[in-house]
Amino acid sequence: MSPFRASPGFTGQWAHFDFEVADGVATVTLNRPEKLNALTFDVYADLRDLLAELPHRGDAKVLVIAGQGRGFCSGGDVEEIIGELQKFDTAQLLEFTRMTGAVVKALRECPLPVLASINGIAAGAGSVIALASDFRLMARSAAFAFLFTKVGLAGADMGSAYLLPRVVGLGRATELLMLGDKIRAEKAEQIGLASQVVDDEQLPAATTELARRLADGPALAYSTTKVLLTRELDMDLGSSIELEAMTQALLMTSKDHGEFYRAWTAGRSPQWTGR
Amino acid sequence: MSPFRASPGFTGQWAHFDFEVADGVATVTLNRPEKLNALTFDVYADLRDLLAELPHRGDAKVLVIAGQGRGFCSGGDVEEIIGELQKFDTAQLLEFTRMTGAVVKALRECPLPVLASINGIAAGAGSVIALASDFRLMARSAAFAFLFTKVGLAGADMGSAYLLPRVVGLGRATELLMLGDKIRAEKAEQIGLASQVVDDEQLPAATTELARRLADGPALAYSTTKVLLTRELDMDLGSSIELEAMTQALLMTSKDHGEFYRAWTAGRSPQWTGR
Amino acid sequence: MSPFRASPGFTGQWAHFDFEVADGVATVTLNRPEKLNALTFDVYADLRDLLAELPHRGDAKVLVIAGQGRGFCSGGDVEEIIGELQKFDTAQLLEFTRMTGAVVKALRECPLPVLASINGIAAGAGSVIALASDFRLMARSAAFAFLFTKVGLAGADMGSAYLLPRVVGLGRATELLMLGDKIRAEKAEQIGLASQVVDDEQLPAATTELARRLADGPALAYSTTKVLLTRELDMDLGSSIELEAMTQALLMTSKDHGEFYRAWTAGRSPQWTGR
Repeated sequence: MSPFRASPGFTGQWAHFDFEVADGVATVTLNRPEKLNALTFDVYADLRDLLAELPHRGDAKVLVIAGQGRGFCSGGDVEEIIGELQKFDTAQLLEFTRMTGAVVKALRECPLPVLASINGIAAGAGSVIALASDFRLMARSAAFAFLFTKVGLAGADMGSAYLLPRVVGLGRATELLMLGDKIRAEKAEQIGLASQVVDDEQLPAATTELARRLADGPALAYSTTKVLLTRELDMDLGSSIELEAMTQALLMTSKDHGEFYRAWTAGRSPQWTGR
Repeated sequence: MSPFRASPGFTGQWAHFDFEVADGVATVTLNRPEKLNALTFDVYADLRDLLAELPHRGDAKVLVIAGQGRGFCSGGDVEEIIGELQKFDTAQLLEFTRMTGAVVKALRECPLPVLASINGIAAGAGSVIALASDFRLMARSAAFAFLFTKVGLAGADMGSAYLLPRVVGLGRATELLMLGDKIRAEKAEQIGLASQVVDDEQLPAATTELARRLADGPALAYSTTKVLLTRELDMDLGSSIELEAMTQALLMTSKDHGEFYRAWTAGRSPQWTGR
Repeated sequence: MSPFRASPGFTGQWAHFDFEVADGVATVTLNRPEKLNALTFDVYADLRDLLAELPHRGDAKVLVIAGQGRGFCSGGDVEEIIGELQKFDTAQLLEFTRMTGAVVKALRECPLPVLASINGIAAGAGSVIALASDFRLMARSAAFAFLFTKVGLAGADMGSAYLLPRVVGLGRATELLMLGDKIRAEKAEQIGLASQVVDDEQLPAATTELARRLADGPALAYSTTKVLLTRELDMDLGSSIELEAMTQALLMTSKDHGEFYRAWTAGRSPQWTGR
């Protein structure tokens, strides 16, 4: 647990998705399979709050986001979200869109690597949650669909118009966000949107393998890599080089770096502690 | 027509390219086929000014740029532009380069989606006009050539050194802008420079199909997507997410979003008005 | 030689790599083949200082970086660098990481095109030196490995977390920097990390050919292209277009641009002087 917690406790029960932490790997499993894991207001709120707490717990080194059943996440529920939005006033609409954006901001700023395990459709908000993750493992039959314009909304949602051009380039991002068409796994891999594509039945094993590798490895090194990747998208060359110089000088004092050198000298494998 | 027009009227006749608006689709056709649609000072000036007027007319929801004959646009005419530049003084040279840059700035900031229909060579300034468009449909025999260094000028022209790395990555952009070699359609598609490649005789139909889709769809959603893609290239993560929250809250009050929900509830297709 | 040199002379002998300038092409050859050209403190220092001097000498229009033997550069020497770091205090660690970052800053800000001729493994700092070059020619058997996390350090080193996402996109950069796995030449070319892949025995000839082309061509045009590519990664659209307008107006007054026009008029090939 983080030494820097004062009054707030940790949430005992996350009611709107399945959550577990096992041996360094935290897993959120969206659990409305009958709706392809469509999001409700409560799922958004719980994701936002979990991402704030999770790095302080100290028991998780990586976060996996997965979906039950046939889909990963079909986005905001048409009944329970879009239907409700019709009744909202100006201030409520903004409160809602800020909450959804806060989930993406928290995903990018979370110091743990986040792995989206995409078993089926990742659409709308579901596609942006996957996009804001660090690794996107896709089942061969899975697909993305940034389908916002198909419901009459801007393709720029929850930071998608910031993130997608930085992942696949401006031309492809324009096409995907403006038209909202489906992108199958093979295409997603080809354009750098999927980290890895595996046969459907291999997805759980591939997810576990990568999650274990990240949890068992030099976690502080992984974490600082992610944090700097996030920050340096918004920094210039000179400042980025200075930030990396500071960061690397700090990591040269870490237990894991010393352990690497001792292990190398002794001709054995390093025993990482993530400190 | 925009309610926010005061004294200036609209230009009655564009003398330096063919221009028409039909059923929401504006089309500029470069019409010097005997010169592969090489640009003159007047073509640049008319493009800049048309792009300023076009969004105010209210009759166009998408702009197509095409070329007559065998080429799309071979860039600045060697006789009529490069020849004249030899006689220009310092202030005139800068006035010219600022005009060419203004065309690209107007293309990127135009709130309508712009579709380049590339039937043949897109070279020099022609390649940058296509690059600054939102969609690049290419005939299979068409090609790009950012050939500025081949005339002794910087490969950075009209914003190409800003745009191309954000479309194809820094490594490929360096190669293409520094060497100025031809990139064929198949390669352009592979690296994300072409949105779509079709057989030569299919290009007009594919262009019409995409233009119609953009003109008939939720135009305000398309427009805001483009505007935010343009702006967020220059914004940080947090500000982008805030801008998207504001934008999406606004679009949730739009006619088209309400229409989506009513159509979905009634089990029919939405009738988009673009408002 | 630059007219703007005052007291400092040029370094007579670079002791920590082979260096020559021949007919406009400067070549640094890392010369510790028995260690796959692992870097020492002195190699870093000499690279940093050579890059500061080189553009002032006036005899080089392009820089080639190559490695002797089977490797390009295996990164910091485990004995001579990592071993020594274990004994360093805080200030010394930072002085070291700032020096390594200064090499990358100098590579990106060097007004000459830099060509990495990658004959074998480019690992750790060696991979970042190649990444900071403008062209990456790879032998078919060569490979990259951003292996920093494998020694317990941040994958963000010497600017890699700034540069790599801008070359291959954020998703692929995350994977490569966080996991540190080997990327073979074919994959590197596919994702835009390699400019060109050639059969192993063709690498020296391909390197010479590209270097000669850059040295014999319009060098001022190449140089300004590189400088603007570097700067515009950190600039917004409007400012980039203004910078390109200024730059291009300047280059329109250059000897090489005038020469292009005279040669074109006369129906002959231009004789570039690089001025």
